[in-house]
Amino acid sequence: MIGGGVGAFIGNVHRMAARLDGEIELVCGVFSSDPEKSKRSGIALGLDPERVYGSYVEMIERERALPEGQRMQFVSIVTPNHVHYAPARMALEQGFHVVCDKPLAFNLEEARHLVQLVEQTGLLFALTHNYTGYPMVKQARAMVRSGALGTIRKVVVEYLQGWLSVPLEQTGQKQASWRTDPNRSGMAGAMGDIGTHAENLAEYITGLRIEELCADLSTFVEGRLLDDDGSVLLRFENGVKGILHASQICAGEENDLNIRVYGTKGGLQWRQQYPNSLVVKWLDKPMEVLRAGGSSLAPEAIAHTRLPAGHPEGYIEAFANIYRNFARCLRARLVGEEPEPLFTDYPTVHDGLRGMLFIDRVVASSRSGATWVRMMEE
Amino acid sequence: MIGGGVGAFIGNVHRMAARLDGEIELVCGVFSSDPEKSKRSGIALGLDPERVYGSYVEMIERERALPEGQRMQFVSIVTPNHVHYAPARMALEQGFHVVCDKPLAFNLEEARHLVQLVEQTGLLFALTHNYTGYPMVKQARAMVRSGALGTIRKVVVEYLQGWLSVPLEQTGQKQASWRTDPNRSGMAGAMGDIGTHAENLAEYITGLRIEELCADLSTFVEGRLLDDDGSVLLRFENGVKGILHASQICAGEENDLNIRVYGTKGGLQWRQQYPNSLVVKWLDKPMEVLRAGGSSLAPEAIAHTRLPAGHPEGYIEAFANIYRNFARCLRARLVGEEPEPLFTDYPTVHDGLRGMLFIDRVVASSRSGATWVRMMEE
Amino acid sequence: MIGGGVGAFIGNVHRMAARLDGEIELVCGVFSSDPEKSKRSGIALGLDPERVYGSYVEMIERERALPEGQRMQFVSIVTPNHVHYAPARMALEQGFHVVCDKPLAFNLEEARHLVQLVEQTGLLFALTHNYTGYPMVKQARAMVRSGALGTIRKVVVEYLQGWLSVPLEQTGQKQASWRTDPNRSGMAGAMGDIGTHAENLAEYITGLRIEELCADLSTFVEGRLLDDDGSVLLRFENGVKGILHASQICAGEENDLNIRVYGTKGGLQWRQQYPNSLVVKWLDKPMEVLRAGGSSLAPEAIAHTRLPAGHPEGYIEAFANIYRNFARCLRARLVGEEPEPLFTDYPTVHDGLRGMLFIDRVVASSRSGATWVRMMEE
Amino acid sequence: MIGGGVGAFIGNVHRMAARLDGEIELVCGVFSSDPEKSKRSGIALGLDPERVYGSYVEMIERERALPEGQRMQFVSIVTPNHVHYAPARMALEQGFHVVCDKPLAFNLEEARHLVQLVEQTGLLFALTHNYTGYPMVKQARAMVRSGALGTIRKVVVEYLQGWLSVPLEQTGQKQASWRTDPNRSGMAGAMGDIGTHAENLAEYITGLRIEELCADLSTFVEGRLLDDDGSVLLRFENGVKGILHASQICAGEENDLNIRVYGTKGGLQWRQQYPNSLVVKWLDKPMEVLRAGGSSLAPEAIAHTRLPAGHPEGYIEAFANIYRNFARCLRARLVGEEPEPLFTDYPTVHDGLRGMLFIDRVVASSRSGATWVRMMEE
Repeated sequence: MIGGGVGAFIGNVHRMAARLDGEIELVCGVFSSDPEKSKRSGIALGLDPERVYGSYVEMIERERALPEGQRMQFVSIVTPNHVHYAPARMALEQGFHVVCDKPLAFNLEEARHLVQLVEQTGLLFALTHNYTGYPMVKQARAMVRSGALGTIRKVVVEYLQGWLSVPLEQTGQKQASWRTDPNRSGMAGAMGDIGTHAENLAEYITGLRIEELCADLSTFVEGRLLDDDGSVLLRFENGVKGILHASQICAGEENDLNIRVYGTKGGLQWRQQYPNSLVVKWLDKPMEVLRAGGSSLAPEAIAHTRLPAGHPEGYIEAFANIYRNFARCLRARLVGEEPEPLFTDYPTVHDGLRGMLFIDRVVASSRSGATWVRMMEE
Repeated sequence: MIGGGVGAFIGNVHRMAARLDGEIELVCGVFSSDPEKSKRSGIALGLDPERVYGSYVEMIERERALPEGQRMQFVSIVTPNHVHYAPARMALEQGFHVVCDKPLAFNLEEARHLVQLVEQTGLLFALTHNYTGYPMVKQARAMVRSGALGTIRKVVVEYLQGWLSVPLEQTGQKQASWRTDPNRSGMAGAMGDIGTHAENLAEYITGLRIEELCADLSTFVEGRLLDDDGSVLLRFENGVKGILHASQICAGEENDLNIRVYGTKGGLQWRQQYPNSLVVKWLDKPMEVLRAGGSSLAPEAIAHTRLPAGHPEGYIEAFANIYRNFARCLRARLVGEEPEPLFTDYPTVHDGLRGMLFIDRVVASSRSGATWVRMMEE
Repeated sequence: MIGGGVGAFIGNVHRMAARLDGEIELVCGVFSSDPEKSKRSGIALGLDPERVYGSYVEMIERERALPEGQRMQFVSIVTPNHVHYAPARMALEQGFHVVCDKPLAFNLEEARHLVQLVEQTGLLFALTHNYTGYPMVKQARAMVRSGALGTIRKVVVEYLQGWLSVPLEQTGQKQASWRTDPNRSGMAGAMGDIGTHAENLAEYITGLRIEELCADLSTFVEGRLLDDDGSVLLRFENGVKGILHASQICAGEENDLNIRVYGTKGGLQWRQQYPNSLVVKWLDKPMEVLRAGGSSLAPEAIAHTRLPAGHPEGYIEAFANIYRNFARCLRARLVGEEPEPLFTDYPTVHDGLRGMLFIDRVVASSRSGATWVRMMEE
Repeated sequence: MIGGGVGAFIGNVHRMAARLDGEIELVCGVFSSDPEKSKRSGIALGLDPERVYGSYVEMIERERALPEGQRMQFVSIVTPNHVHYAPARMALEQGFHVVCDKPLAFNLEEARHLVQLVEQTGLLFALTHNYTGYPMVKQARAMVRSGALGTIRKVVVEYLQGWLSVPLEQTGQKQASWRTDPNRSGMAGAMGDIGTHAENLAEYITGLRIEELCADLSTFVEGRLLDDDGSVLLRFENGVKGILHASQICAGEENDLNIRVYGTKGGLQWRQQYPNSLVVKWLDKPMEVLRAGGSSLAPEAIAHTRLPAGHPEGYIEAFANIYRNFARCLRARLVGEEPEPLFTDYPTVHDGLRGMLFIDRVVASSRSGATWVRMMEE
């Protein structure tokens, strides 16, 4: 693991997610750019001090030098955005599979290069767009793909937070500081941090790509250098229309990621705050509430649930589904077998590229006065 | 009453709303353009057959000729959009106060002329943007105006229906037919029918005017001549940003009018389907759910509630609040007194003009490729 | 109307409910035991002062003396419980149909006598167990009766309020005073006031009669003379088990009347606070939420809805359904026709007798230490 | 670990819960009464085959024989009820700390003996009444204890399932089979399996003990030998009244454990299906919804949350809170320190005894015709 020292939010999430199913073991890491701190964190995590490193370069080199079977089998990168590319690149170049936090990179160029590297090396690369790990998100996707909702017409996706309603970065709060810093976060703030999750969720569930967008980004908190709110009109393939908005200044909102998808026969709604329910409204029959663990679900929803209906699963379990699927694909690869088809689904470097393209284009649109721009790789 | 014969939806709503409090009596009407049908409807409603007329011209002339004290005191116009202007104009010119269904008129020019007439005659004119009659909408407005939420930053307002997901107008269904007909509905479909309610609600609660908008309207159902879905980015006064979307093709949605308003201190959410609750989320204290009839509400919310908390009130009661306030203002006017301040609030011809301007500008924006246009009267 | 002067809660509810559909007109009344107050209330309601009376005896005698066609057609009794019997009895004896607020009477003996009188005279008698007027309650009943839920096994019904958590009656608050006074309310407090609604709702929806019960009543507020809380185990016909509890000391609850009914195939839940939804959970398929005005409902649910789905109806509309059905049955009677079958359903004097029996037996059970007693008329 | 082979539900839950925080490692186990199966399960779990045993006797003896520091530090018992006592007893007698699934034992006598053994040995003993691990349950308890709700008056607790609506045990379904078998489950069915959770939750949150109860148990499914539904009137200390009901035949219900507690100043409601919210209703101010991870919570609620508000945690995390607290207390014990006070809270053998007493008394009450019995150890 690279990053995620004591006090980091997402590092601990990655560790809990990786641990949950007992299929992954943390064997080494560099937990801070300060070697002292890294050491302390690693020891607190129960690692062999020999394998707690002072830099990612050191870690990759030293692990590379271990005999196969003793070295780490993949790297998890959980650092701020500006420290995704270099370790990911080195890991790939040194033959390590990678799990990386989102967004994929600091800018579009880095992202394109990582895609190339993954394609060249053939290594596995998972990007933790963790919300796609929820079973009812998988159910939503299965229903859209099966045509149960008819032809899709409209998508509304939101990710609303309120925690940056005040200039928290000016208080030294760590999470706020790097997320609002163009040198560490990249060219977008809220749009990069959470807008990309919304974009990914919409494309994941519908299987449709955004073709054009028109974005109006705002910075409400004085002195802030990046957007803390943005509203985007979307045009998907096949004439599907959409709205995406993400905000970190919706005072009182927690992590309100939600999506609605409407087709000719019905619509569905999923909301992270009630992740085990999928509301399905029909044009000509009563509304249904599908429940994780319940009857009549798609195989991919069932495969990603650990408990009977009514025993709620949450964010960690969804995150663990990304890790478990990655681990199972990796294990199959190592033993030269095909992975079990139901457990091959995790976000990849290609999803990451879409996210970076999204960031690039919403900023471009907004800077040009909220005009329409295309969001397609040529 | 003009319009609202047997089988009409909104005519009966107006009558129930007017009746509820026992302060208004239906004394005459023309209920259809077919004099025979009009007569039958009027008699079924228990009217004196002498005062069931064959045309609005006849009604206004004949009532005008009655001695004061015997003639009708105001006119309710509940016809499709293309028959708002002419009867409203004649009523005003003949000295009758008017209640009119929304949108105000068929086009912007008619709307401007009605505003002039109301200003010239000094007569009362209520437009039934009925959702502003809900007590918790009034509570929301009071909270925004008092500064309880801090400085407003963002507004999200939606009005989603699904009933026009199929070409219902091709089956002869009456409500669908005129709403999708440019000759009766005007230049907009969903945006005129329900988008204007959303626009009115946002301006009513926030007290802020939309300055600019960028609208992407769609017609999803083949053969339909007007928009059945639209997404609009909004820029209000004072740098407030917003999103408005309205749709009649969100399959499975009923009448999901809802609004969220975020300020620097907190945010509120109101949803027609749970009209007696107002969810208030705070930046730094627990979320509250204010309830109609409950404690701690603003005087204007209390004044527009008829029952103790937990006995739900609904659409008809909210609609009746528009009528009751109009009736009380009219009664005060007739006896030369000031109306009681808590009961003077109803939407007027000026709200109607904003609505027509909104229709005009969203269509203009969308036709020009979803570009930004201003929404201000010079 | 008897009772319901200015400031009374339920009197005004009865008037709004009766007015809503324009099928009933208030023509006379006695609104207070104080003739002066009665006069003032009647005039404020716009009545002919000649027909505002000083006592119910005077009203019934004077109206009786008017020529048929000019006299009132039925009496509404909206007084406290101890003044139900005498005016109801006199009205029946003088040939007037009756609408009476619940509970039917002050004690079981009065109730039995009113049943006799109704049977002897053949007059119509409606008891305003108003919650049975909700369309989704009718839907629930239709589903149980059709066997959709399979064989019924268990019923849980609750009516929880919090307003009597403090000794409000000691402050002179009118509604609290008579409800907690054994001389005006009868032998039960909360159980009579709201427990009977719960009992009625359970028997109405299931069509099953309670056979035995075991009640533990409590008086939590010091100095109060009647129960303010009670929990009751129920045994219905056919081995169905149940729980009923009603309370006026559940601090923070408003008017939380709700019921759950479970059968071998599924269960349903209805809650007054979201009256337009009926949640149906199935043993082997996804949960459904049926909505008033929506598709697939039973004819009796549709017939008691006035608006399209998503435009919420509430307490007044449900109450109005009782009045409208009563009025339609009465009108059919007056013209010698059969009433339209869908509009004949309203609670009767027999429901009232069940309610009085319920009060009698829960008090008897509780007084004997919460032991089992039978609840059947021999 | 004893029990919990492949396919067992609760064994895997224990393992995920123990793993989540990386503070506990599974080192040995006996996973089936069939040594072959046990071996296969252990190996699949990645254990050293040497430490996968054929019986709990073998495991305890062999581990006992290992040098300190190499042997297991505690035992987790996750077998059906009739196999709790013997291994727990042996483990305690051999000096091992114990985590045991609930209910504590097969009958009251066994339970009393285990209490004695724990008291004699001074060993740690945790019983997985896992629902008390939810942060908002801890918040509820903190609020009751602080007096925020005033003096408690009423408690309503429910645990409703529907999965045993049909005779699943006759199909050979494993979970159903032992739970409905008096020889493996004990004297109660639903009441033992889930009623004890409800009882524990009520006593945990309120800090009040049930003094008397009156239970009406039912067996709805033909041929079943134990109760599948039960309703219980409760009388707690201090005159507090309550209702508890538990059912496995509420068709369509999943795991609907919920509790409401009412005091003189307000009431609270917690429901497992939305475990991160605690609804608090106040007598004289608006209802609040407290959220896990949100502001203004009690220290013990904060200490048992791993994620920011809005990232839902669930059943596994709550279960893990029991394990983590047990592990921290054990670790403190091993190093001779006081455990951190915020992390000492887990259900003990004494809670287990209360549960067994509850089972004993509800069955006694019901068998005597649903009469009142006391629920106190002398």
